[in-house]
Amino acid sequence: MTARADLTEKIVRIKIERDLTWAGLTALAGGLSKEYVTAALMGQMPLPRPAAEAIGAELGLDDYETKLLQQPPYRGSLPTQVPTDPLIYRFYELVSVYGTTFKALIHEEFGDGIMSAIDFRMDLQREPNNAGDRVSITMSGKFLPYKQY
Amino acid sequence: MTARADLTEKIVRIKIERDLTWAGLTALAGGLSKEYVTAALMGQMPLPRPAAEAIGAELGLDDYETKLLQQPPYRGSLPTQVPTDPLIYRFYELVSVYGTTFKALIHEEFGDGIMSAIDFRMDLQREPNNAGDRVSITMSGKFLPYKQY
Amino acid sequence: MTARADLTEKIVRIKIERDLTWAGLTALAGGLSKEYVTAALMGQMPLPRPAAEAIGAELGLDDYETKLLQQPPYRGSLPTQVPTDPLIYRFYELVSVYGTTFKALIHEEFGDGIMSAIDFRMDLQREPNNAGDRVSITMSGKFLPYKQY
Amino acid sequence: MTARADLTEKIVRIKIERDLTWAGLTALAGGLSKEYVTAALMGQMPLPRPAAEAIGAELGLDDYETKLLQQPPYRGSLPTQVPTDPLIYRFYELVSVYGTTFKALIHEEFGDGIMSAIDFRMDLQREPNNAGDRVSITMSGKFLPYKQY
Amino acid sequence: MTARADLTEKIVRIKIERDLTWAGLTALAGGLSKEYVTAALMGQMPLPRPAAEAIGAELGLDDYETKLLQQPPYRGSLPTQVPTDPLIYRFYELVSVYGTTFKALIHEEFGDGIMSAIDFRMDLQREPNNAGDRVSITMSGKFLPYKQY
Amino acid sequence: MTARADLTEKIVRIKIERDLTWAGLTALAGGLSKEYVTAALMGQMPLPRPAAEAIGAELGLDDYETKLLQQPPYRGSLPTQVPTDPLIYRFYELVSVYGTTFKALIHEEFGDGIMSAIDFRMDLQREPNNAGDRVSITMSGKFLPYKQY
Amino acid sequence: MTARADLTEKIVRIKIERDLTWAGLTALAGGLSKEYVTAALMGQMPLPRPAAEAIGAELGLDDYETKLLQQPPYRGSLPTQVPTDPLIYRFYELVSVYGTTFKALIHEEFGDGIMSAIDFRMDLQREPNNAGDRVSITMSGKFLPYKQY
Amino acid sequence: MTARADLTEKIVRIKIERDLTWAGLTALAGGLSKEYVTAALMGQMPLPRPAAEAIGAELGLDDYETKLLQQPPYRGSLPTQVPTDPLIYRFYELVSVYGTTFKALIHEEFGDGIMSAIDFRMDLQREPNNAGDRVSITMSGKFLPYKQY
Amino acid sequence: MTARADLTEKIVRIKIERDLTWAGLTALAGGLSKEYVTAALMGQMPLPRPAAEAIGAELGLDDYETKLLQQPPYRGSLPTQVPTDPLIYRFYELVSVYGTTFKALIHEEFGDGIMSAIDFRMDLQREPNNAGDRVSITMSGKFLPYKQY
Amino acid sequence: MTARADLTEKIVRIKIERDLTWAGLTALAGGLSKEYVTAALMGQMPLPRPAAEAIGAELGLDDYETKLLQQPPYRGSLPTQVPTDPLIYRFYELVSVYGTTFKALIHEEFGDGIMSAIDFRMDLQREPNNAGDRVSITMSGKFLPYKQY
Repeated sequence: MTARADLTEKIVRIKIERDLTWAGLTALAGGLSKEYVTAALMGQMPLPRPAAEAIGAELGLDDYETKLLQQPPYRGSLPTQVPTDPLIYRFYELVSVYGTTFKALIHEEFGDGIMSAIDFRMDLQREPNNAGDRVSITMSGKFLPYKQY
Repeated sequence: MTARADLTEKIVRIKIERDLTWAGLTALAGGLSKEYVTAALMGQMPLPRPAAEAIGAELGLDDYETKLLQQPPYRGSLPTQVPTDPLIYRFYELVSVYGTTFKALIHEEFGDGIMSAIDFRMDLQREPNNAGDRVSITMSGKFLPYKQY
Repeated sequence: MTARADLTEKIVRIKIERDLTWAGLTALAGGLSKEYVTAALMGQMPLPRPAAEAIGAELGLDDYETKLLQQPPYRGSLPTQVPTDPLIYRFYELVSVYGTTFKALIHEEFGDGIMSAIDFRMDLQREPNNAGDRVSITMSGKFLPYKQY
Repeated sequence: MTARADLTEKIVRIKIERDLTWAGLTALAGGLSKEYVTAALMGQMPLPRPAAEAIGAELGLDDYETKLLQQPPYRGSLPTQVPTDPLIYRFYELVSVYGTTFKALIHEEFGDGIMSAIDFRMDLQREPNNAGDRVSITMSGKFLPYKQY
Repeated sequence: MTARADLTEKIVRIKIERDLTWAGLTALAGGLSKEYVTAALMGQMPLPRPAAEAIGAELGLDDYETKLLQQPPYRGSLPTQVPTDPLIYRFYELVSVYGTTFKALIHEEFGDGIMSAIDFRMDLQREPNNAGDRVSITMSGKFLPYKQY
Repeated sequence: MTARADLTEKIVRIKIERDLTWAGLTALAGGLSKEYVTAALMGQMPLPRPAAEAIGAELGLDDYETKLLQQPPYRGSLPTQVPTDPLIYRFYELVSVYGTTFKALIHEEFGDGIMSAIDFRMDLQREPNNAGDRVSITMSGKFLPYKQY
Repeated sequence: MTARADLTEKIVRIKIERDLTWAGLTALAGGLSKEYVTAALMGQMPLPRPAAEAIGAELGLDDYETKLLQQPPYRGSLPTQVPTDPLIYRFYELVSVYGTTFKALIHEEFGDGIMSAIDFRMDLQREPNNAGDRVSITMSGKFLPYKQY
Repeated sequence: MTARADLTEKIVRIKIERDLTWAGLTALAGGLSKEYVTAALMGQMPLPRPAAEAIGAELGLDDYETKLLQQPPYRGSLPTQVPTDPLIYRFYELVSVYGTTFKALIHEEFGDGIMSAIDFRMDLQREPNNAGDRVSITMSGKFLPYKQY
Repeated sequence: MTARADLTEKIVRIKIERDLTWAGLTALAGGLSKEYVTAALMGQMPLPRPAAEAIGAELGLDDYETKLLQQPPYRGSLPTQVPTDPLIYRFYELVSVYGTTFKALIHEEFGDGIMSAIDFRMDLQREPNNAGDRVSITMSGKFLPYKQY
Repeated sequence: MTARADLTEKIVRIKIERDLTWAGLTALAGGLSKEYVTAALMGQMPLPRPAAEAIGAELGLDDYETKLLQQPPYRGSLPTQVPTDPLIYRFYELVSVYGTTFKALIHEEFGDGIMSAIDFRMDLQREPNNAGDRVSITMSGKFLPYKQY
């Protein structure tokens, strides 16, 4: 495993041992969202220095580990091309089933281009519902038109 | 190619030849959303009979094709496990990068379970923005808890 | 290996060393089925706290390990996409051979939708038979209709 | 496509065009179950001659096609190793999540061996339930012990 | 093959039969670069309407084909994940060998983010050299910083 | 992991711990470019002996490690055939989308052959731009014609 | 590596260090064949208790290791789907080349069904021959007819 | 499909239409075994000219098809790396489970080398047995020692 | 299939129908070797115009096909990553077994670099031998040193 | 890693630390070629006992390691199906591009059969050349005709 993956595993272990929550750790991160902070602690995003130092102090990380949290990681959080975990697979399934629909509708609305996965933010909420609460995810990514040159 | 894939290709061809739009075809579908209708015409969802007949009539489909539109299809709209089209790939990338984050936050909020990709709806909108308009996608899926037995 | 996989390996080792059985461990789990408890100890399901503590005490697990048993795991119990173990492969073969049959019959009976693998229970029994006993597996999953929206 | 796959596609087309059902076709098959007959018409099992001739007559198949229905097919009904259709994927997911559980429990009950996928029968039923009807599948396969020699 | 792939094959055939060149076809495309026009005719980019009509007229394409050239295509020009053609493979090899170097140097210069492959242009030139002429490719892509939110 | 991969990981760790830069390390390498030196320290190129010794001394490497830096490595810097890291994926995407364009244009300009990935140099620069700075990469590889024999 | 794989590696090491043979170890196994015993020691079959204890004593295994030899293992002895070792590949090649021939001839002789790989025995012998000795392998597996139901 | 695959499909169709058997066709082949002739007609072996002409005449093949039967084919009879047909899969499973056993025993008996899959013959027989008849396959391949040089 | 693959299949068909040989076709190719001409006719190399016209005339190809023979093809002659044909597989096996040996010895003799597969020639001969004739292949590729820059 | 892979890594490390060469180690191997000895030390061939003992003594290997060098290894020297190292990839590319050519020419010269990769020898030499020295590899493998039976 890479150094960053080792660090992720260490953080997850401390979180379980000490009954911490992602929301609680986010509160130390100076205004960042829980989505961003969780992704960072799962090894997918760098933390800004103050957030890394505050969370590193809370978790008892050493200097190298605190610096490592600030590095842009080699991204990709899944062990296989097709995820095996059912929760994560459902998102892959949405891409598999709706992928051409995303493409058709975005091209109809915006023309040729893509939705950025970099200039991107995400919000995940509980949506109360009598027939059973729902997971509501709002994704917002900048439309990037293909340049003709 | 399967019969349904042939039909999808035929529909896309007619749409291009006659300058139709997904929004225009949706208007014939009796209150269904553009996301659902587009997915159905891309071969991923069945249409209810009235919608199939109205759209089939507009497109000049024969009886078998109109019935085929009402069948639950063998789903999966992409030719490869990892999509090559950049627009669709960005969604796969979100699953790859944020997959463990989705899992961590949904479990923290709801406990063990998944977000349904079946009892699911989606809304795709343009979000005006001075720094460049954004694609906004809201997904809502019922939370399904794992049963202990 | 992940922390959970390490724990699974440890549990299996103790079970062999001390001649324990899945049925015996299930008896400590407060009414859960042997199918659920075995899946949990194989690293695929979380145990409720009392069951985790009772089984953890029996197996001599430490506090972190006992807590780890209560976490929703990253699921997927097999090392390859196509399983190599003959017992498990036969189930994959059933999906490969009967997959389109499952789909045809469920759609004929229920319409478009799926059988849930989340709101799901399973019972595995010996079925005595003069020509050789049989393995009988009953699966029951809630039918989830696709929503049209 | 192979000749058998062509025949499957033709049968499915006729079934849609003439609003036939698997149950209705099974009624022509002299006591075979709907599970077996559907699998045969999906190209996965051979039909006995009387059943092939009765169904072939109903569907208007020619002599070669009627004989083809009686051949043991090259089995495997899915286009990819990991199925993309959500209904079928859920069964693959069950193998992925519960595979080691099946193995553990069958070995505890029967010793070393497998559940046959050949000397096998299956029954798929609707299970009425106030919280939503359920799909109930009972599988019964002969236990085959590994021979020591 | 898809309709667009059929069109690409038709265009390549006409180009060979009539001894046309990419440079010659580009001259009809109203100021677009040879890199963009070639990519479009290879089925990877849409042409603006005037360019599509001018080139379509030159090649004798019908109305549907001329419209098809204006559609954003399902991108991905290669038949396999790892390209087998030696010329194209060398570019894949550069990604394989230099991928982590690209990442290290872009992060050192720009911070966390990516080089856009959408807001992107490319220029391919012959670079005369006494030891044998060289292929010179200049790529320019907008740097897109990851948003923290 | 191989010995060279272990060394790469060690070098990256020291670089993070001591806040070193690739540019700073390159300054020790006697005139080599930052692209070459970074690739070497990422385990993809051998360093000439003086550069290896100067950088080894700076990083506190032992004799074996310093010699290891001078060996031609088993190249390939990515853990998967299709890279999961978004920055590196964009380059793979360029090969996927533009691969046949590279081939078409190089053959039109040079005839049959390839651009060498061995007799190759690369320069990566920041390109200031009011609409957002750009990454500019210039690649220069010797054209190698296929020999007819 | 799994515990069983570790044990296999340990046994192979002892066998090399002490110049043991599979035939010699088989002599301790109370009438089992060399094919079965070798497969068991390679981690693919369980040994009956007396054989495990006799061989465990000879090899100096501890109690846990001796019990582990008696467990049905997770089978699959090869690191890749297509074996790279030439001796083993030749058998894969026979399946690849003769697979449809096995199917055609077994169906002609027996009807629809399979040759069991569970109720199976194998004998591997040297077949003296003036043109060079031959490897002779006789496989005997029970024919299992598909049940119609 | 290749020309040879087309021919195989044609031969199989004629065999079904006219109720021919592999044994019957073999009787025309001048002393060749049913295993070799079946493999040849399945597109995996060339037939000698007299056998090709006799069988070609019986099946009504034209001159080109009769010549094609005499060509060494591009071998490989299965559509996927891991066969999906259960009968053929069982042989793959034997390689997967017993592969390292084959290797261990052949090396112990013969030293380093392989069993040839070229200088090879095979005999497939029914083995009557009160507990159910068995498939008996005897394979004989020349041992080829690795040359040291 | 691509146009070039169609042409290859047509050429192979004519060669079989008219009992032509690669050596005979090479005699029309103005001094090119049989290795190059065969590779060209198998769709892997372009023929110079005079050779294409002479061979095209002999085979009765039309103008487009004769021009197509002169195009640099999309190379890659095999349908799968790991070849299934035993003759071709043996060469893949040599790469698999001897790959690191090639690398070790070329680096020891030449330093860091590769053997070109572009500036390359090959000669395939029969080598008479009392113990059975041998295939002798001599490959000669220019050594290309990695440039340090 | 397997025991043999560990040993290979140890040998390579000693070779680098002590500035040994493959040629030098070959000189200890009693007349074996550098190609064979290098392949053996890379873990792909067994060494005869005297060579193993002489080289083991030189390298300071212990008894087990010296015996391990004499075992037929599980062959396959590459970590991926398609090699990522450019030097080794070029050989894979030759198989990909020239595979069907090898097949066509060997069948024309010898009839149906293969070139043995077992009864095989190889010689790798520097071929001086004014336009740049060349790598010359001569492979000689026994032709093995397919047996008809």
